[in-house]
Amino acid sequence: MTAAAEDNLSAVLYKAQDLRLEQRTPPEVGPQDVLVRIHSVGICGSDVHYWHRGRTTRFVVRAPMVLGHEAAGTVVRVGHQVHHLQPGDRVAIEPGVPCRSCLLCKTGRYNVCPEVEFCATPPVDGTLTRLYRHPADFCFKLPDHVTMEEGAMLEPLTVAVYSCQRAGVSLGSRVLVCGAGPIGVVSLLTARALGAASACVTDISKSRLEFAAGQGANGTVLIDDASEAEIADRVVAALGGRPSAIIECCGAASSIRMAIEAAAPRARSRPKELDICGIFRYANCYQAALDLVASGRVRLDPLVTHRFSLEQSEQAFQTALEGRGIKVMIAVHKD
Amino acid sequence: MTAAAEDNLSAVLYKAQDLRLEQRTPPEVGPQDVLVRIHSVGICGSDVHYWHRGRTTRFVVRAPMVLGHEAAGTVVRVGHQVHHLQPGDRVAIEPGVPCRSCLLCKTGRYNVCPEVEFCATPPVDGTLTRLYRHPADFCFKLPDHVTMEEGAMLEPLTVAVYSCQRAGVSLGSRVLVCGAGPIGVVSLLTARALGAASACVTDISKSRLEFAAGQGANGTVLIDDASEAEIADRVVAALGGRPSAIIECCGAASSIRMAIEAAAPRARSRPKELDICGIFRYANCYQAALDLVASGRVRLDPLVTHRFSLEQSEQAFQTALEGRGIKVMIAVHKD
Amino acid sequence: MTAAAEDNLSAVLYKAQDLRLEQRTPPEVGPQDVLVRIHSVGICGSDVHYWHRGRTTRFVVRAPMVLGHEAAGTVVRVGHQVHHLQPGDRVAIEPGVPCRSCLLCKTGRYNVCPEVEFCATPPVDGTLTRLYRHPADFCFKLPDHVTMEEGAMLEPLTVAVYSCQRAGVSLGSRVLVCGAGPIGVVSLLTARALGAASACVTDISKSRLEFAAGQGANGTVLIDDASEAEIADRVVAALGGRPSAIIECCGAASSIRMAIEAAAPRARSRPKELDICGIFRYANCYQAALDLVASGRVRLDPLVTHRFSLEQSEQAFQTALEGRGIKVMIAVHKD
Amino acid sequence: MTAAAEDNLSAVLYKAQDLRLEQRTPPEVGPQDVLVRIHSVGICGSDVHYWHRGRTTRFVVRAPMVLGHEAAGTVVRVGHQVHHLQPGDRVAIEPGVPCRSCLLCKTGRYNVCPEVEFCATPPVDGTLTRLYRHPADFCFKLPDHVTMEEGAMLEPLTVAVYSCQRAGVSLGSRVLVCGAGPIGVVSLLTARALGAASACVTDISKSRLEFAAGQGANGTVLIDDASEAEIADRVVAALGGRPSAIIECCGAASSIRMAIEAAAPRARSRPKELDICGIFRYANCYQAALDLVASGRVRLDPLVTHRFSLEQSEQAFQTALEGRGIKVMIAVHKD
Repeated sequence: MTAAAEDNLSAVLYKAQDLRLEQRTPPEVGPQDVLVRIHSVGICGSDVHYWHRGRTTRFVVRAPMVLGHEAAGTVVRVGHQVHHLQPGDRVAIEPGVPCRSCLLCKTGRYNVCPEVEFCATPPVDGTLTRLYRHPADFCFKLPDHVTMEEGAMLEPLTVAVYSCQRAGVSLGSRVLVCGAGPIGVVSLLTARALGAASACVTDISKSRLEFAAGQGANGTVLIDDASEAEIADRVVAALGGRPSAIIECCGAASSIRMAIEAAAPRARSRPKELDICGIFRYANCYQAALDLVASGRVRLDPLVTHRFSLEQSEQAFQTALEGRGIKVMIAVHKD
Repeated sequence: MTAAAEDNLSAVLYKAQDLRLEQRTPPEVGPQDVLVRIHSVGICGSDVHYWHRGRTTRFVVRAPMVLGHEAAGTVVRVGHQVHHLQPGDRVAIEPGVPCRSCLLCKTGRYNVCPEVEFCATPPVDGTLTRLYRHPADFCFKLPDHVTMEEGAMLEPLTVAVYSCQRAGVSLGSRVLVCGAGPIGVVSLLTARALGAASACVTDISKSRLEFAAGQGANGTVLIDDASEAEIADRVVAALGGRPSAIIECCGAASSIRMAIEAAAPRARSRPKELDICGIFRYANCYQAALDLVASGRVRLDPLVTHRFSLEQSEQAFQTALEGRGIKVMIAVHKD
Repeated sequence: MTAAAEDNLSAVLYKAQDLRLEQRTPPEVGPQDVLVRIHSVGICGSDVHYWHRGRTTRFVVRAPMVLGHEAAGTVVRVGHQVHHLQPGDRVAIEPGVPCRSCLLCKTGRYNVCPEVEFCATPPVDGTLTRLYRHPADFCFKLPDHVTMEEGAMLEPLTVAVYSCQRAGVSLGSRVLVCGAGPIGVVSLLTARALGAASACVTDISKSRLEFAAGQGANGTVLIDDASEAEIADRVVAALGGRPSAIIECCGAASSIRMAIEAAAPRARSRPKELDICGIFRYANCYQAALDLVASGRVRLDPLVTHRFSLEQSEQAFQTALEGRGIKVMIAVHKD
Repeated sequence: MTAAAEDNLSAVLYKAQDLRLEQRTPPEVGPQDVLVRIHSVGICGSDVHYWHRGRTTRFVVRAPMVLGHEAAGTVVRVGHQVHHLQPGDRVAIEPGVPCRSCLLCKTGRYNVCPEVEFCATPPVDGTLTRLYRHPADFCFKLPDHVTMEEGAMLEPLTVAVYSCQRAGVSLGSRVLVCGAGPIGVVSLLTARALGAASACVTDISKSRLEFAAGQGANGTVLIDDASEAEIADRVVAALGGRPSAIIECCGAASSIRMAIEAAAPRARSRPKELDICGIFRYANCYQAALDLVASGRVRLDPLVTHRFSLEQSEQAFQTALEGRGIKVMIAVHKD
């Protein structure tokens, strides 16, 4: 069978709320690339934003673009310079590929490379497609006992690994996680795996907090009508002290103010030299995330609460938009 | 002569704009203390705030307090456990003494010790006094060729050393210094001494910028009616690129916004993972500041633009309040 | 009851193999001290060296000295400046007290303070005594569910925490632990708790390796007659790759050479920029070690293989000397 | 003129002491490459080893290889994807090009990339050739006032920048530089530029020490028949204290032992937790080295003590072999 005849059904976003399933020409494979038969793709908040509004805060969809960037699948072809992977290998895909030659790439901070091409960030096509090409060195071979869905979920887990590293979470840390969505929950799991002494999660949703409590949070605090200072006090009580690290996963100004209040309240007479670190995606953390899952230290399956086929993509996005469950997963292939 | 008979004229602030010169009982010297005959005391912005308004943003004068925390003098008595200093030694005084037993002290961050006692931060008496007691390990012996005024000015220089360390200023850095007051100028000098590739200083005052230009700034940018984005563009042009480190020394919200715009403009599509670090005084930097001066790498004398005697303290504070010159120095003893 | 009448039986080493049980005057308690009724004391290799040979490589016993430095007990008296502890509190004792005023103390590296006084390092008395005085800030309150024996064993665990920190053990690390004695085993436990991907332990003793295997080692390698290069190859196979961190806990030159061979074999054409870090005790790690135990992440009870009363100290040291079991514990008080 | 007709005289080493000048086919330029008309090439100790013995400790010449890796020249052609350079630009060449896709490259440590190709490290051809191809991102544009010879000498200066970074040289450092050859001297210059408080250089050659003294060393110590401990004492006296950083540039075991003795003498009772860091070339330091030269903080011209034409290469290597002067420079083109 020639490449042209292969099934490459893809979920292409034309503009806000105009998602089309269509066959695309299977991609060519360069010497350092692999072709991956995609199995599972998780839906992320950014995918939902593109689908629903045609944009995120920062990026705008201006031309048809395949959605999806949390993906795993099976290698079906490899370029002639690829040595560490072969057809049949099951892999997770790190979705951002940098230029490899700018100062940021050379110093290990390739996530902020100005030329980085990231799946389903306009205008770069994503992974919600049956056949996907990717540089081999951004594919991570999955051990047999790690599932494809877990492979797909390495992407948000890697965000958590990077965030916890940047925040210095380690033995004895008291960690505040703001937000109990998917990123909040994997941040909680990662902080625990790093040996944090205690972890507290906040959210505006009771059901999300209940879920977080079941994932190892020592305490949860509902964001209600109370003042930021009062909520901060509850956080400190739940943690058994002021947080030594805060992972802010919701972005609301009130949440950020509350977090700062918890760390270093305005009423105190002594300053604390807070360090505030911006986080953009991740660099060099995929393997560590995979190790967490492969070793059983972090279990991701409970996070998958909804499953759809590629043909049901529209329903999948609708479900994610409604904020039901934690992670919505699309089966691009079923075997 | 008994201690009681010694001259210990001191500049005591009773409340806002009520500064009195009065004799105080000379202090007792504990086993690890030295008694210092103060020679020179520089006036800092915080001293001026206490004198003029009775408070800073954070601290309030509620009882009579000796002002001053930038000081050098001559050791006249040492406690029996003091070995590295002896009477006659000329010393600079690091003015903040921490508890030495909390977690922050033990981890080397004694500047944010909640029990730190800092000269002329209420209710702790300062150094604008003829005889001053201090723990010997917070006194730094001056080589013969370093003047008492330079010794007093190690205090602001140490702020700069600590800030530049925290900001990672090193070989090749492009440094933006916001504010051309005393802290801005010593930050500029320190950045240059650390091997920064270029340094640009901003201020609202033309004369201060001219002074900074004479102290080694590669470029200066006047803060005028232009938009923050325009000023940021001028900064980037002056530095020959976006700043890799920013030392914010003025605290105005517009200055902070401009600095962020210079580092990572809002209009760009790619984020930069800015790290924002709070700075509160300094820890473990006094000796490095002294080395800078002793080795001739940093010259502080040009910064002393006005001099007064202890008896002229009121005039000294008035001069500092009016923002004339860079550093106002009080000679507590003249020999 | 006056202090003089209190039972303060102590195990005092006069010279090599001359250990005497004798009553000592109970210590005075300074304003920042606590008096601790010692419950449990673990025996360390250095205690055995002093008892057997009167010296370690570095330190020599020249005057009678109480042995022991791994201790926990109950606070019975507190100095008037002590606020965070009160009589009845159960505490673990961090046994090294630094000068608090040298450069090393001020920068957080108090373990290498040249004036540090460390229990049972000549000429400083140790904790194998019924009543022991210590600065309150070097005592760590044990939660109710942490046993006194666990409290005593925080000392070696803290060595492991510090070593793993210095070695950069974190998520994804492949850790080689050389030596399966007590320090090797707690290093293994700590590396696991920090999220290491795999850990391999080496030793010359099959039984010790079996014990390590039961404590979570992914692989163990017996040091036998094979060449260093062959043993290094076995280590690499057991770890699934070259070690990214090595914790050397035996000190034998052959072990160090093997470890270097495992990390960066001489036969390779490409160098690896190995960093070799000296480790001396620990600083700022006791609380993290306690958190590991209190949270259940590390279980120390299985390591206590032999128990003796204070009166049986001689037998206890003999047992430790013979290298039987992992940790020998002395019950100084039985309740 | 076609490429084939261009003059590309090259200094090719066939085997030990068999250096031939021959015309080579000018290289093809790939889309991200530049073609450089080489102007100046400095001779390094490794070049001399290859020429004299056909090998270094680690690498062996097995096939004809162009020598030279310290080079600067003028861009004469650029690949179509090159944007930051154009014909006529004068550039310094960073001679090691890594694979860009292994873990070490991705984490910013490309110097230890196992696939790195480094000029004149067998079997990779070097820069002692009239026309040289190189990836554009490893070429650094020289300002007009920086000479070609300075550009060539950025290579050893970059070694010094990287070493000083790894050793943590900064404000207040006391730096011991072992060896007063070219690398020792540029390390001295760099340590000074980083704000080191004092620097002492050792060597077995009086004339080299005199040269180092003229380059800003606070002290020099001749390695003579004295014991390592005595020499260490002289170093400590010259530095005004024990070194806080040591840059070992000669590799002799006795020098390493002396350096350790200076840092932490065996006779002391207290250990110091020495960290020993391997250094292999450099990563991400070329621009900082260029900034040092461009800003006038480091002057490299005095280091060039001998000059030869490309046709005189044999004499140049002979001069370098005899250890005369500091840096031998070959003019590949004269304009």
